[in-house]
Amino acid sequence: MKSQISSALSNFFFEYETPRQVLVRNRRVGVVCRLIQLGVLVYIIGWVFIYEKGYQSTDTAVSSVFTKMKGVGYTNESGKERVWDVSDYVFPSQGDSSFVVMTNYILTEGQQMGNCPELEGKHSCQSNADCEGGSFKRQMTGVCVNSTKTCEVLAWCPVEDDHSIPSPPLLMSAENYTLFIKNSVTFPIFGVTRSNLVEGINAEYISKCLYDPNDAPLCPIFRLGDIVKLSGFSFGTIAQVGGAIGIVVDWTCNFDLHVKYCKPNYNFHGLYGNPNETDQTRASVGYNFRYAKHYLENGIEKRTLLKVFGIRIDIIVQSMARKFDIIPTLTAIGSGVGIFGVATVVCDLVLLYLLPKREFYKNMKFKYTDTQVQDPDSEAGSIETEK
Amino acid sequence: MKSQISSALSNFFFEYETPRQVLVRNRRVGVVCRLIQLGVLVYIIGWVFIYEKGYQSTDTAVSSVFTKMKGVGYTNESGKERVWDVSDYVFPSQGDSSFVVMTNYILTEGQQMGNCPELEGKHSCQSNADCEGGSFKRQMTGVCVNSTKTCEVLAWCPVEDDHSIPSPPLLMSAENYTLFIKNSVTFPIFGVTRSNLVEGINAEYISKCLYDPNDAPLCPIFRLGDIVKLSGFSFGTIAQVGGAIGIVVDWTCNFDLHVKYCKPNYNFHGLYGNPNETDQTRASVGYNFRYAKHYLENGIEKRTLLKVFGIRIDIIVQSMARKFDIIPTLTAIGSGVGIFGVATVVCDLVLLYLLPKREFYKNMKFKYTDTQVQDPDSEAGSIETEK
Amino acid sequence: MKSQISSALSNFFFEYETPRQVLVRNRRVGVVCRLIQLGVLVYIIGWVFIYEKGYQSTDTAVSSVFTKMKGVGYTNESGKERVWDVSDYVFPSQGDSSFVVMTNYILTEGQQMGNCPELEGKHSCQSNADCEGGSFKRQMTGVCVNSTKTCEVLAWCPVEDDHSIPSPPLLMSAENYTLFIKNSVTFPIFGVTRSNLVEGINAEYISKCLYDPNDAPLCPIFRLGDIVKLSGFSFGTIAQVGGAIGIVVDWTCNFDLHVKYCKPNYNFHGLYGNPNETDQTRASVGYNFRYAKHYLENGIEKRTLLKVFGIRIDIIVQSMARKFDIIPTLTAIGSGVGIFGVATVVCDLVLLYLLPKREFYKNMKFKYTDTQVQDPDSEAGSIETEK
Repeated sequence: MKSQISSALSNFFFEYETPRQVLVRNRRVGVVCRLIQLGVLVYIIGWVFIYEKGYQSTDTAVSSVFTKMKGVGYTNESGKERVWDVSDYVFPSQGDSSFVVMTNYILTEGQQMGNCPELEGKHSCQSNADCEGGSFKRQMTGVCVNSTKTCEVLAWCPVEDDHSIPSPPLLMSAENYTLFIKNSVTFPIFGVTRSNLVEGINAEYISKCLYDPNDAPLCPIFRLGDIVKLSGFSFGTIAQVGGAIGIVVDWTCNFDLHVKYCKPNYNFHGLYGNPNETDQTRASVGYNFRYAKHYLENGIEKRTLLKVFGIRIDIIVQSMARKFDIIPTLTAIGSGVGIFGVATVVCDLVLLYLLPKREFYKNMKFKYTDTQVQDPDSEAGSIETEK
Repeated sequence: MKSQISSALSNFFFEYETPRQVLVRNRRVGVVCRLIQLGVLVYIIGWVFIYEKGYQSTDTAVSSVFTKMKGVGYTNESGKERVWDVSDYVFPSQGDSSFVVMTNYILTEGQQMGNCPELEGKHSCQSNADCEGGSFKRQMTGVCVNSTKTCEVLAWCPVEDDHSIPSPPLLMSAENYTLFIKNSVTFPIFGVTRSNLVEGINAEYISKCLYDPNDAPLCPIFRLGDIVKLSGFSFGTIAQVGGAIGIVVDWTCNFDLHVKYCKPNYNFHGLYGNPNETDQTRASVGYNFRYAKHYLENGIEKRTLLKVFGIRIDIIVQSMARKFDIIPTLTAIGSGVGIFGVATVVCDLVLLYLLPKREFYKNMKFKYTDTQVQDPDSEAGSIETEK
Repeated sequence: MKSQISSALSNFFFEYETPRQVLVRNRRVGVVCRLIQLGVLVYIIGWVFIYEKGYQSTDTAVSSVFTKMKGVGYTNESGKERVWDVSDYVFPSQGDSSFVVMTNYILTEGQQMGNCPELEGKHSCQSNADCEGGSFKRQMTGVCVNSTKTCEVLAWCPVEDDHSIPSPPLLMSAENYTLFIKNSVTFPIFGVTRSNLVEGINAEYISKCLYDPNDAPLCPIFRLGDIVKLSGFSFGTIAQVGGAIGIVVDWTCNFDLHVKYCKPNYNFHGLYGNPNETDQTRASVGYNFRYAKHYLENGIEKRTLLKVFGIRIDIIVQSMARKFDIIPTLTAIGSGVGIFGVATVVCDLVLLYLLPKREFYKNMKFKYTDTQVQDPDSEAGSIETEK
């Protein structure tokens, strides 16, 4: 018994099957078939492997960004000189990856809680009747103020007047501010961590470099004016009404090369959806928010309201790393072989159904299990097919 | 020589191999085999291609979100009327994708640095002995105050009393605030950029629309009350103790269609982990933080401490774009063909090991290198191998 | 006609093709071939399936994080005692996933807008001539102040003096602050939502636990000192000059198991790019920003400027879930079969080109369509086999 099994096993091990094949000597079919096979081969090697790097697996990074602005702004409103430093014009102050640089503002000083008439144009009225019932946008007192012909509201008074946006923007000097970006990315699958302060970008270099797409593409210091220009806006416009700009830090790395070739690439674009669709653009142009500084004067709580127009900067990290991996490689090869099979199938169709000598080739290729008598009529049938 | 090679080459090009096959005429095996092959075919075409869109490659987006709240709140605490506008109730003010809308608060005015007794219930004591040694949560002075029977602490005095949370919430009117979401997504691989202000969502439409899951699913203006309702909470509760809600902007796009069909889809859910696990929920219900406004009174630094209860809103962008790609397509086909091979293997097993006439079929299928005498030395060789 | 088709169809259904094969009884080729096939098998089953879990599809999560610090700091500068509570030392206050804990600071009180000389060392001058023309970093008045020999600037005066950073850090007590992390993740494809407050982490447990990598790896309460230690820094250093630490919440889940086994895993590391590259480290060590509190004194706007040195904490959620999926499974099998094909091809090459008896095997394997000519005996041979 045991010997039987072992002999069977040895048989299994010392023999192997290889399919028997017909070698069709036929120019047309041959050429067709070779061409198809060649195509498959070119596709697998050229496209999947070389072009699409199908032998690599991919990974995206988790990242962390922080930023620091530098520069001082100067305004001179009706003789009142004022400078604006980082803690005045950056919101929030702690250097997030998404922040706003104030470039223009409407200042309403000394507001305090009380009743005052609405701005002209808003909630205009003829009599108190028109001012009854509040809206969720305003807290009406139900009184119609004659002088202005607008309803009286309970609000921070005086009411902010933002009908006209200062032009030119008050902080045009923002163009010269600089932005320092610190970004570190980690590719968890490949276990690689990189910082945008790559080899050679040391403290000394940073102290004097300024980003330039051609001359200094790795310098992490950006001039605000350049950022706006590179994102395709005019600084004047965006500084007046505000706008949003995305700085994309693009990490496209191939870890089959040395890690030092894994460097960031900075792109800049306005965050306005599809610029071709003018409706959208119109709908989404401008960026502003209100910010209040509270203080106490003679025991009364007051605030200085700042309507901030500014450049909102979002730093977006985009990453795609690739590295050789056995599995995608063999999957590609394996399925490639599969496609080879398809090639053969196609050729066979040509051979067996299109060629004039197809009957002959059928005979060469196929052997029928019922050539010995066992089921006469099918026998007959098959013989016919032989002829 | 050269001619040899060229002839070999021409042979190679003008001929091709096709496997010789046995055509088994056997109902059982035939049916089994055809069914398996049919199954594979259905799987590949129906499942992989049509259902799972296996012919497409996928991409996720990098996105940027900003937001703007509108609305005014009104409170009347013991006759003291007050309105709350955006700069008062939104934290942070600059319109991030994650922010808090204040709906309830505990106000502690006129705090200044000094020594005062702890609240009753906290650090209660009988004698100074009980108040020795500080904790990292409190800066003890080591004195036990008789009046309150609590330890004295160095802190912003008077100490905040947050034992009872105002109910109903002071800013119930927050229900009517509106939230405007601006979101732009970029699919780097497909190079497509979209904004949630899709075709037709223009400035004019935005000015009067209000999001509704059925009637206005693309309007980017949301009523806070609706958001809470849609996320399955009661506004009353969440407004009192605070809570966190995620607004998922879902971009599921098929770029084989026109890009205009790529539209956002808004979902709302509470950010409480698995709601079934009550322990968790209990542990994580409520959301609050403390916020201080500093001011100077008669040369003394004071602050107004605000314990803010509010709705924390996280806007989460989820994206999955698909587009036809030759590689996944051919990979699917290729591996499908491979599975076809499996089918044949299965059938062969049936044929060669299960059928009564298996010996006969074995003979048909296999040809042994040492069966027919025809090439003596190989015969000899192979016989040796047998021994 | 109809009957013809039906018969053809029935033929198709009741018969099937199986390739005819040569069973080569040859130790060398047999062993080589079996080994290759074995290798492929081991690779597919062992590597792709068991090791790499190739039968699963993957998904990454969208997540939402919020945080809460606890603890009180105490400073005693030249007799002036002061406590710092959460609303004083956390920026921003509303509990974002990325925030700064102040551990050291330079306080400049009572600044007001005006002209004052620059700090010594900066913009030093001999005469007004040296102070002409401004820079975007300073607003010069063009006057050289004799007393200090530095240019006069329009700025918030007095100018901040940040030449020396307080050491030891003023808020060394920050070491004992605690951080509570609340994180919820949603795997959109698998439709699973989890919170880091997993089963058993209930309100009661949270109230008394403290994270420890070994004893309490699931406790969401972290001691700041531990975080710094675990990320490989000395608290003293980082507290003085500031620094950035990433807390990675790692969700690696296998949803073929019960969802309760899907638990977070916390890692801590400094966000300094590659620590080996000292240049980088030097360039990016330290973290600080400026923060101003504005107030009004006798009608004059003043501010208290705070240069904040602190620990910037980024909470980074990393997620990778896996679940059985039919498509990757069959793709793996399919392409595996393809690779099997490769094995056969290799063996055939050996058989047909390397073996001494290759001619014989060629004859066995191939049948030529132009049999009428070349080698009669093989013809004969094949005829024999037909019988």
